[in-house]
Amino acid sequence: MKQKQWIQFLLAGAVVFLFLFSAQAWGHGGHHHPKPDKTGILLVAFGSSLPEAQAAFEHIDQTVKAAFPDTPAQWAYTSRIIRDKLAKSGKELDSPAEALAEMAADGFTHVAVQSLHTIPGKEYHDLVRIAKNFEQMPGGIAHVQLGLPLLSTQADMAKAAEAILETLPAERKKDEGIALMGHGTHHPSNALYAALMWQVQLRDKNVFVGTVEGYPEAGLIIEQLKAKGIDTAWLMPMMSVAGDHARNDMAGEGQDSWKSRFEAAGIETETVLKGTAEYDAFVDIWVDHLKEAMKKCRPHHHK
Amino acid sequence: MKQKQWIQFLLAGAVVFLFLFSAQAWGHGGHHHPKPDKTGILLVAFGSSLPEAQAAFEHIDQTVKAAFPDTPAQWAYTSRIIRDKLAKSGKELDSPAEALAEMAADGFTHVAVQSLHTIPGKEYHDLVRIAKNFEQMPGGIAHVQLGLPLLSTQADMAKAAEAILETLPAERKKDEGIALMGHGTHHPSNALYAALMWQVQLRDKNVFVGTVEGYPEAGLIIEQLKAKGIDTAWLMPMMSVAGDHARNDMAGEGQDSWKSRFEAAGIETETVLKGTAEYDAFVDIWVDHLKEAMKKCRPHHHK
Amino acid sequence: MKQKQWIQFLLAGAVVFLFLFSAQAWGHGGHHHPKPDKTGILLVAFGSSLPEAQAAFEHIDQTVKAAFPDTPAQWAYTSRIIRDKLAKSGKELDSPAEALAEMAADGFTHVAVQSLHTIPGKEYHDLVRIAKNFEQMPGGIAHVQLGLPLLSTQADMAKAAEAILETLPAERKKDEGIALMGHGTHHPSNALYAALMWQVQLRDKNVFVGTVEGYPEAGLIIEQLKAKGIDTAWLMPMMSVAGDHARNDMAGEGQDSWKSRFEAAGIETETVLKGTAEYDAFVDIWVDHLKEAMKKCRPHHHK
Amino acid sequence: MKQKQWIQFLLAGAVVFLFLFSAQAWGHGGHHHPKPDKTGILLVAFGSSLPEAQAAFEHIDQTVKAAFPDTPAQWAYTSRIIRDKLAKSGKELDSPAEALAEMAADGFTHVAVQSLHTIPGKEYHDLVRIAKNFEQMPGGIAHVQLGLPLLSTQADMAKAAEAILETLPAERKKDEGIALMGHGTHHPSNALYAALMWQVQLRDKNVFVGTVEGYPEAGLIIEQLKAKGIDTAWLMPMMSVAGDHARNDMAGEGQDSWKSRFEAAGIETETVLKGTAEYDAFVDIWVDHLKEAMKKCRPHHHK
Repeated sequence: MKQKQWIQFLLAGAVVFLFLFSAQAWGHGGHHHPKPDKTGILLVAFGSSLPEAQAAFEHIDQTVKAAFPDTPAQWAYTSRIIRDKLAKSGKELDSPAEALAEMAADGFTHVAVQSLHTIPGKEYHDLVRIAKNFEQMPGGIAHVQLGLPLLSTQADMAKAAEAILETLPAERKKDEGIALMGHGTHHPSNALYAALMWQVQLRDKNVFVGTVEGYPEAGLIIEQLKAKGIDTAWLMPMMSVAGDHARNDMAGEGQDSWKSRFEAAGIETETVLKGTAEYDAFVDIWVDHLKEAMKKCRPHHHK
Repeated sequence: MKQKQWIQFLLAGAVVFLFLFSAQAWGHGGHHHPKPDKTGILLVAFGSSLPEAQAAFEHIDQTVKAAFPDTPAQWAYTSRIIRDKLAKSGKELDSPAEALAEMAADGFTHVAVQSLHTIPGKEYHDLVRIAKNFEQMPGGIAHVQLGLPLLSTQADMAKAAEAILETLPAERKKDEGIALMGHGTHHPSNALYAALMWQVQLRDKNVFVGTVEGYPEAGLIIEQLKAKGIDTAWLMPMMSVAGDHARNDMAGEGQDSWKSRFEAAGIETETVLKGTAEYDAFVDIWVDHLKEAMKKCRPHHHK
Repeated sequence: MKQKQWIQFLLAGAVVFLFLFSAQAWGHGGHHHPKPDKTGILLVAFGSSLPEAQAAFEHIDQTVKAAFPDTPAQWAYTSRIIRDKLAKSGKELDSPAEALAEMAADGFTHVAVQSLHTIPGKEYHDLVRIAKNFEQMPGGIAHVQLGLPLLSTQADMAKAAEAILETLPAERKKDEGIALMGHGTHHPSNALYAALMWQVQLRDKNVFVGTVEGYPEAGLIIEQLKAKGIDTAWLMPMMSVAGDHARNDMAGEGQDSWKSRFEAAGIETETVLKGTAEYDAFVDIWVDHLKEAMKKCRPHHHK
Repeated sequence: MKQKQWIQFLLAGAVVFLFLFSAQAWGHGGHHHPKPDKTGILLVAFGSSLPEAQAAFEHIDQTVKAAFPDTPAQWAYTSRIIRDKLAKSGKELDSPAEALAEMAADGFTHVAVQSLHTIPGKEYHDLVRIAKNFEQMPGGIAHVQLGLPLLSTQADMAKAAEAILETLPAERKKDEGIALMGHGTHHPSNALYAALMWQVQLRDKNVFVGTVEGYPEAGLIIEQLKAKGIDTAWLMPMMSVAGDHARNDMAGEGQDSWKSRFEAAGIETETVLKGTAEYDAFVDIWVDHLKEAMKKCRPHHHK
């Protein structure tokens, strides 16, 4: 071997050492996160364009910031329709993917994403998959930890049943009905409404949980109330905010609203326009889920 | 440009044309499935090592083969413990991933995977993700379409409620209780048991649905039966096969079995050792789900 | 069955029909893109913070907009360091993930992502995986089609060899050397530099292609020039822009610059500070790749 | 709250504790691998149906088993055509996905997958993605670490150049040509052949590297040999086994074989029917890559 060849091989050798440290970056990928640890919170709601609904979100925002004063928290809305409406009035809200892409670009390595949905339906499962895609993405976020929606584990169901009973209007008499309006979905998680109702009814037989778009439908609740001879019912949203559904589909004057249908069936109604996110009893369940997510999301925590 | 250079560039040009057809294979990947269409069915159960349980699986197998006589159907078990037990007695059962890897290697391009689970819990969601990974895998399966478990949509819940009422033992008197034993889970889909119970109770107040590992627990059902003054209850599995749980946790003589606990509380018991997969009323729900999956799984069907 | 029960089952039946159309949205996911088709272009460069480098990017931008006047085109930079530098001077540039998340939120369903890199190294492969994650993401982009970097297929290599020979400075004499400076990488695609050199040397024995961070290193090129008795060499960037590497590592006065090292070895140097993106001969290769990507990215084009 | 209700809430409370440990299994998934650590090796070759080629694979098998006597090692072939041919003669070979699915079912948690390909082309990149899918799959393999193909880093290129020079036939005279036949591909990694040739030619100007399906094509090598006035060339495979390509496309009597084309151009040929996997000088590069992969694949090794 001549001298020139030796030089060439020594140079090549230098490359080996550099390579040994960097090889996995391209050979395997995705798990190479040399960024310093930086933890953040992303709060994700369906969203609402009603100014009245903002009180509920602000309540959550303040509770979260009080619980995690040192961790930056930002918001994303899953509803494109709501985001587009708000954009027209000059308020830019991120989609979950936009928020996560921005947090990745800003160097966040650990993000707890708290779902502010009521049930783990399509929106929640979409969030899980969006999170997973950001974990897998080069330059993404090493650890994106989902916090569960309001009604998830049986422990949540028990707490939510308790919260419902605690937040019933003081004026309601025991022989008056309660009809909570959940959103409802074609996703199997729709069953959580009937399951919650079964548990609440163990303690108060006159509380019903129905939905706008799933099962049980208003007609079945009306039928049940009539069978019990109940002539007055309180209509209350089982949604985080008292938005469009609460104001129109529940308490509106249109003939398809719950109010109109209950009254057409001879049941007098009282309406409560307050979302679950306005009550600490419910918000605490979400914040407990966020605390759980934050614990799993700590740098060096083994998943 | 000299003649030799022209030859070289003409040769290079030939490569361009070949490339234009193959480029996406490496530039984009995963979607390149030049194999001819070949459709198959994969039936996935938790599994059972009890010979008595095989009747239930054979019933499903025959019903599926009668419904799709031209489509090859094979089985996989999700439980590694069951597979290991069976392997010791010389019966090799595939995991879902093994079955899909084999079907991919055998040239299947479209596979309907029918979950024979009762609820869309962890096992079902794992199957969804396994399916997705095989769709994304080079040399995988272009389209893997999941069929839903027994209790998924509200339509399933209504059909299952009907099936429960239809398959109650003829000898049971109306004032005797029914306690169905589901498996139960920490997954939110555990709520489907209470939701199903709420619906069944609309028609028969004395039918209860409990679980071994979730909510409602046996104690709560015993308490409810006692409150109603019911002194006899029929214990029946709400599981596809009457396997270990039905024989031991439900009908066994151990002091923690439902039978022992019910009797210790002063409730006489009758036990039924037949899984839901032994009744057409339930099997038809699964097979309807498979039919739905097969429709979506047709070659050239746009997802 | 009583009348009330019939009503209840009819209501449940209505849900079935709704479900049949929406089921795959949650059962399968990811492929459900009901948005109307909207096609866009994303141009992705490593980026540069030098104002002088902008000429090269503007040249590409104008060429692309002339080729696709009806398709919105935007930019992203892959280098976080460059993005952070630009942000300090008030210029916000997106990361590829930020740009794609924004395009998804803006309703784009088909996006051609043109890599403006020189070789398909780590940066390009990262882009492929980012694209794939956006295709898999709920609410993502149905089809994200990558356009290849400058040097990819053998046809590109042949065109690039031609482009190098065409863009050599008119003043350079045939017996003077040319040393092109590529970036270089520990990724195997680093081999493209030597492969390109082998092809260029078929027509001009005195043209060399070296790298800053890979192989061949400057020392080997100096050695080869000396062995051939060449005493003058033209240093030219084989990078899209004449940025930091060209100005400092190649043409700088520091003792480790190519200029200094060549001169220390007794080879006089001339330097050319013009990136490949400033020459149509190279830009046309990238734009051809974009045209190819756009063809595959058309709505209803079968991948 | 009555006593019965207290009992109910205490029972629900018990579920909370169980849940806190298992929640991430369904909320996040994929990273939950409670199986005990078990490490294995998977050797992946394109495959060959020729009995003569088995010598090369056996050589690798023995070298690997000597290097890792305590780690079970098994094989998979990427070519479906080869697997189908072998199956007809009763020899069942797994696809990579089948082997990984089986290893997952057998409890392997850490698998080093050594690619026995020559370049990181489509087959290698497919393996990377298959590995990634098994890492993401529930019940999959916690860590699947790829080992690089023969020619990957510049260090490999330097070692391979050396190995080529070491394994040239002793009878070959310095003024006789060498034409190595690589497979070639439309993938950009095809450039590795020309890059390797450039480096080998730094030390032996008469060694050429061509391909069957890529660039450089035989015609260009013949042209170069003629230009140098070389009238004898040794044809040798630059493939792991001397299989179909070596026996037919290189050394065959058909008019399109290299042998026929070289001789038609007036160059006498000698043929060597031995794959690179039969020489320690090459096998050591693959085994070094496997050693590197095994280091990264150790349980508790942080990726």
